Amino acid sequence: MIPGIKSRSTTYRQIAAPDSQVVQFGPDQPLRLDCGIDFAPLTIAYQTYGTLDPQKNNAILVAHALTADQHAANIHPVTMKPGWWDKMVGHGKPIDTDRYFVICANVLGGCMGSSGPGSIDPATGESYGLDFPVVTIRDMVRAQTMLLDHLGIDTLFCVIGGSMGGMQVLEWAASHPDRVFSAIPIATAARHTSQNIAFHEVGRQAVMADPDWRGGRYLLEGTSPKKGLSVARMAAHITYMSDEALHRKFGRNLQNRAAITFGFDADFQIESYLRHQGSTFVDRFDPNSYLYLTRAMDYFDLAADYDGQLANAFLGTSTRFCVVSFTSDWLFPTEGNRQVVHALNAAGARVSFVEIETDSGHDSFLLDEPELFGAVRGFLDSAAHARGLPAPPTRQLSSTML
Amino acid sequence: MIPGIKSRSTTYRQIAAPDSQVVQFGPDQPLRLDCGIDFAPLTIAYQTYGTLDPQKNNAILVAHALTADQHAANIHPVTMKPGWWDKMVGHGKPIDTDRYFVICANVLGGCMGSSGPGSIDPATGESYGLDFPVVTIRDMVRAQTMLLDHLGIDTLFCVIGGSMGGMQVLEWAASHPDRVFSAIPIATAARHTSQNIAFHEVGRQAVMADPDWRGGRYLLEGTSPKKGLSVARMAAHITYMSDEALHRKFGRNLQNRAAITFGFDADFQIESYLRHQGSTFVDRFDPNSYLYLTRAMDYFDLAADYDGQLANAFLGTSTRFCVVSFTSDWLFPTEGNRQVVHALNAAGARVSFVEIETDSGHDSFLLDEPELFGAVRGFLDSAAHARGLPAPPTRQLSSTML
Repeated sequence: MIPGIKSRSTTYRQIAAPDSQVVQFGPDQPLRLDCGIDFAPLTIAYQTYGTLDPQKNNAILVAHALTADQHAANIHPVTMKPGWWDKMVGHGKPIDTDRYFVICANVLGGCMGSSGPGSIDPATGESYGLDFPVVTIRDMVRAQTMLLDHLGIDTLFCVIGGSMGGMQVLEWAASHPDRVFSAIPIATAARHTSQNIAFHEVGRQAVMADPDWRGGRYLLEGTSPKKGLSVARMAAHITYMSDEALHRKFGRNLQNRAAITFGFDADFQIESYLRHQGSTFVDRFDPNSYLYLTRAMDYFDLAADYDGQLANAFLGTSTRFCVVSFTSDWLFPTEGNRQVVHALNAAGARVSFVEIETDSGHDSFLLDEPELFGAVRGFLDSAAHARGLPAPPTRQLSSTML
Repeated sequence: MIPGIKSRSTTYRQIAAPDSQVVQFGPDQPLRLDCGIDFAPLTIAYQTYGTLDPQKNNAILVAHALTADQHAANIHPVTMKPGWWDKMVGHGKPIDTDRYFVICANVLGGCMGSSGPGSIDPATGESYGLDFPVVTIRDMVRAQTMLLDHLGIDTLFCVIGGSMGGMQVLEWAASHPDRVFSAIPIATAARHTSQNIAFHEVGRQAVMADPDWRGGRYLLEGTSPKKGLSVARMAAHITYMSDEALHRKFGRNLQNRAAITFGFDADFQIESYLRHQGSTFVDRFDPNSYLYLTRAMDYFDLAADYDGQLANAFLGTSTRFCVVSFTSDWLFPTEGNRQVVHALNAAGARVSFVEIETDSGHDSFLLDEPELFGAVRGFLDSAAHARGLPAPPTRQLSSTML
């Protein structure tokens, strides 16, 4: 907890941000968005872990992925499950909260307390719905800079994230190089591919095809396009796993039955698993936020902002990079991560590249992946040494925890 | 046209079979299905091209894929476009109708004239809907054997097909080896994988999530789950193309606009293309048929019917095989096709294996793919020689058409 930061009431939110700290920026501090709109008021809900050192040198910003939120390393207030990066962030863990001050903020456009399509539009007193402006990855990062200003943190020791979180990491490093000492983009790319956009478009169409979506006005009309969002989640979830992992986990195993039933129930375990993924997701995620965040990813094309030359995004940077990819990730394959590395090399940046051999697909960055933990811990150790951060008191203990 | 075969009225069909020949088998000739039901009456709608030779030695059965039908090489009566295998089947083409008698039948469970969930159940006078029995690939093949019996054809010179069509080819060769002189399974597998099932389940859930599906009774209630089926088609269509092909064809190109619009319209060409694929599909395909045919594919596991040993499916076969795969097909990858080849080798079968280098993905078997055409033509030539079929009169002309 940061002394002096007030938690504000968030009762106007569709989904509140229980247990989160919340900061609000009023009309005097609008957020200039890529679409040209000066957005205000802006609310950011965030979690912190660990203690900010007096020099404010040890802050790590964790950028979350599409369907995650600020609850990286605490019990999630809706699902009551451990945070999505509980294995990575905490006491003695690779992002060691005994050593670092960790910030994770719900992204702009999200649905766990930060401003998004479910927020109340002060101009109408009703939730924005599709009147919420379409935001970009750069807009998300701009909002995060306002949070850092609010926290009085000039420079991040590190910014780290996977997938959409990795896009934010790249955007941070490109747009605010002086504020980023080190950066760890994981399982990401400098732009969304045609296939990536295609899968997102299917998800959006699934949501919009649900008559309960009501043109985005479901909150006002008391409905919820849960079926559409569930289908979207199911389709997306397949892309997060590798063919090999699905084969290993499910194969053609039947679900609690001795033989196929010649029907449309979930005969196969994979069907039951996907249905579960869909039905649990809709309890914690806002359908319009799903549209907005997928759109932000689709729009991401970092090179396009730099005359089509990705290397130009990083010219003159002094940030240290560690790029991580997974061999079986077919949504954000190694190749797209390697293009980032090539651009960083061309820009003369300090960069390590770690390709991790695993069959777990895109979701590997969320799993118990010792090679990832080792790479992050090692890179942060090295960067901390360069930054002059003191060694953690629990050093020997924590290194045995890998 | 086969003399003596009457075209019957199909006015009771939701989607009739214009221009097709139709044969109906009554209650005295029931089709015993894998689910245990004796199904009758059974209707099969089919097309033929070329002339059956007096010895009935030159018949080629073309087995169609999930969303195709019997209109392989004629103008499609609904879309008014050329048949789905017009490039492969016809005068001087690889499956040369000057030489071979080609049969293509709408599969059992389909929606272009053969018995399917849209057919009228004589017991109720209403369309079956979900009361139609869940059928398997083997059931489809059994229905085709009844058609061949009706046509008086003992042995097929060749059975050929891609994807679900390839599954039928494998089932023909396994269940009816004496009736298959040669077989060309293309871009297929001896069983559906977990990932394959997963994508199909998403499509089914998309259809069933549409309130206009009405528990499968939409025909009776005058609705149509077009939005759901469209989403299903969009998701499936992504799997039919490779990432590389999408990149080559669409990349991040914008659709008739100079810049992104910060909205949810189809900014990108890939979005517009997918939406078009979805919306045109629903005009020609029955949503319940989509459920039934995907289910039949999910259930396909040829080895399971032979003590888990795929080679046992082909023991003692004298059929000549040519297995074809495409390097960029990630839905039915080369690996699955190679497993078929290994099983055939283990069974001592005659088998050629052709892996074609292309970036066009699973749909390659439907495209203008000269290597595929050459492989099919060459294999058929060789098999025809072995079968003692006379050389075609147009031989020299046709070989220049490759």
